[in-house]
Amino acid sequence: MTFRAEVFVTPKAVVNDPQGLTIRQGLRSLGFEGVQEVRAGKYLVLTLESPDRDTALARLDDMARTLLANAVIEDYRIEITAVRETVAP
Amino acid sequence: MTFRAEVFVTPKAVVNDPQGLTIRQGLRSLGFEGVQEVRAGKYLVLTLESPDRDTALARLDDMARTLLANAVIEDYRIEITAVRETVAP
Repeated sequence: MTFRAEVFVTPKAVVNDPQGLTIRQGLRSLGFEGVQEVRAGKYLVLTLESPDRDTALARLDDMARTLLANAVIEDYRIEITAVRETVAP
Repeated sequence: MTFRAEVFVTPKAVVNDPQGLTIRQGLRSLGFEGVQEVRAGKYLVLTLESPDRDTALARLDDMARTLLANAVIEDYRIEITAVRETVAP
């Protein structure tokens, strides 16, 4: 089965986020009032083959911990949807 | 009212995504099989004050077009939720 996974990687709440601060400052300089906070993270969309949903999710969790996110300073969230089933002939 | 907005910025489908390719290669080197494609984008979480939902959404769209995304090479999607209403005394 083919799965489409979305991985959201965000800096932990206690960690400084200079990119987010810079974006907030940029928005203010451009006249956008009322923006209190900006947190900047990564949005990864993966297409992967896996025998079933649970296996896919376990693998993605492994990938996130190993490569996609830095667990010391980042949190991650994974959302997964099946996009197509391979039908046997 | 306070709103929490999520902005997802992704490279357009026709645009090369070297970051995504590098992540895919990295996953393969680490032994993660079955990953067909990785697209790497930005995930921005904004907290903002706005009189109502429509105004917030219009402002966010403006922000996305002006600063958050590069419309030539990137698409964006905005999701918004009200997090707290200011109650008049």
